[in-house]
Amino acid sequence: MTQVAEVYPEGRITLREVGLRDGLQLVKAYPSTSAKQCWVRDEYAAGVRHFEVGSFLPAKTFPQFADVREIVGTVGTLAGAHGVALVLNERGANEALASGVAEIGSVLSATEEHSQANARRSRESAIANIKRLCELRDASAHKPIVSAAISMALGCSIAGPVDPDEVLRLVEKCFEAGVDAIGIADTVGYAGPKQVGELTRAAVRLAGSKPVCVHLHDTRGMGIANAAAALDEGARILDGSLGGLGGCPFAPGATGNVVFEDLVFLCESKGFATSIDIEKLIAVRAIARAEMPNEPLHGGLARAGLPLGYPANTI
Amino acid sequence: MTQVAEVYPEGRITLREVGLRDGLQLVKAYPSTSAKQCWVRDEYAAGVRHFEVGSFLPAKTFPQFADVREIVGTVGTLAGAHGVALVLNERGANEALASGVAEIGSVLSATEEHSQANARRSRESAIANIKRLCELRDASAHKPIVSAAISMALGCSIAGPVDPDEVLRLVEKCFEAGVDAIGIADTVGYAGPKQVGELTRAAVRLAGSKPVCVHLHDTRGMGIANAAAALDEGARILDGSLGGLGGCPFAPGATGNVVFEDLVFLCESKGFATSIDIEKLIAVRAIARAEMPNEPLHGGLARAGLPLGYPANTI
Repeated sequence: MTQVAEVYPEGRITLREVGLRDGLQLVKAYPSTSAKQCWVRDEYAAGVRHFEVGSFLPAKTFPQFADVREIVGTVGTLAGAHGVALVLNERGANEALASGVAEIGSVLSATEEHSQANARRSRESAIANIKRLCELRDASAHKPIVSAAISMALGCSIAGPVDPDEVLRLVEKCFEAGVDAIGIADTVGYAGPKQVGELTRAAVRLAGSKPVCVHLHDTRGMGIANAAAALDEGARILDGSLGGLGGCPFAPGATGNVVFEDLVFLCESKGFATSIDIEKLIAVRAIARAEMPNEPLHGGLARAGLPLGYPANTI
Repeated sequence: MTQVAEVYPEGRITLREVGLRDGLQLVKAYPSTSAKQCWVRDEYAAGVRHFEVGSFLPAKTFPQFADVREIVGTVGTLAGAHGVALVLNERGANEALASGVAEIGSVLSATEEHSQANARRSRESAIANIKRLCELRDASAHKPIVSAAISMALGCSIAGPVDPDEVLRLVEKCFEAGVDAIGIADTVGYAGPKQVGELTRAAVRLAGSKPVCVHLHDTRGMGIANAAAALDEGARILDGSLGGLGGCPFAPGATGNVVFEDLVFLCESKGFATSIDIEKLIAVRAIARAEMPNEPLHGGLARAGLPLGYPANTI
């Protein structure tokens, strides 16, 4: 049984590298299984301990995640490493439980419009699905963590502005359903830091001792500023992807997730220790570049390198 | 006589577009005079009121600023528009005074090492030069504003970490020399938001009723987060350049100034009214693209567009 408070201790920031799931969600070419395993091992050697490893979606539609079990296995061989896999239905949940993955993540849209358009179900039905996921967890042998992320929580590409009270109502529903951790996602990069800070603060208050993850996309260049606001307001988990992989289907040419390397720099500069070696992390980009030569890689640290005398001047 | 409190009123944020000076500092190809004039007029139509228009440097070495007088003149024809030109020595100061520019900006390095390497003079000599500039202002007919910016104030590409107390000592010296406004510049993009916020707070306290400008480069992806911190701590002027023009000679491939369009979005999202129309502003990039086809233009808003329902969800 995985204890959420051990995986995400209070008073410490957890950075999760989501390149192998969210970063690959839209790509046509993707890394081979052995390249993904190198990716995980090299990031682990750089100090990364939290990985989104893939998704239990139909391999026909999402061949990039067909090897998710192998990547779960790779993370399982690394002491102190923690993997999370995305699950959207009961079939996927059973496969995820069988894989032994330490955490199962699910997703719920903040707006009815997006829920229907994206998942062809109501938000109520999505919450029932999350409740079922928690029941399956409780009945399982190794009892993985179950988390739920609310997508479009800071603005919706279909419905536009999103009422934060509505998001908080969904957060409560997820906790009632039995989740161990909650996430709020700026899926299409609509928010600025004030909005992110305010929603994070309210979600953290609701969550009590349970961790809140803030998942940011850098679509409009606000990703790092939004991460700074989330850190200030008590987010315990921040997602980012290597090189900012993970474009946005609703904004062609847009950047994807917040750049993980820059996120590490931000945390260190704000005094949140990460134990991650930025230069070793930057070196892992070579795998992404070789396996996906057409995917643009973003990031300030990779372009400019560490400041002279780092970290003395920033910590 | 230009009153600094009228140009930069307390309690209001001023965004200054520095594309035509800092953005052109390193370029080989640069816009024609008429293109620059279009640039200023189109940005003015988008709501921009503050422009860095060029530099009074020797035209032989910096041909991109040879037409600075014409651009000063263009800004002068636009009601409520304010131009600042960079000046580094007495010859330049006299030319700037003769041009009728509303503000003369000077620069001083935070570290002795950078001052010697970049300007071949000591910081003491640079301060004496700023004092002379203020005397020339006092003896002039139209008495422009004189401001001084401290470059490398948050980390130096030659000396590494910079002691904030040393920067504040230089701020005091500049005020003693008679400047109307002070700037702190993260010239090589070394800082994170904590460091920027702390130095801004201390500089604002020292400056009293006089405005503090924070000039940020996005070299390591922290530009917008750092701007958010500067806003939170009372910076009255923020610099940015159209498309993030202005690379860094010490970090090849690095992005330049913080992207002006994204800075406007940040300010609006935090509730600081700018009166700037982001879509009209983005349209001005066409001039930069046509005149400098080899200069990369950056920016999230230009790539992704405004959020659906903007500004309701961010203000």
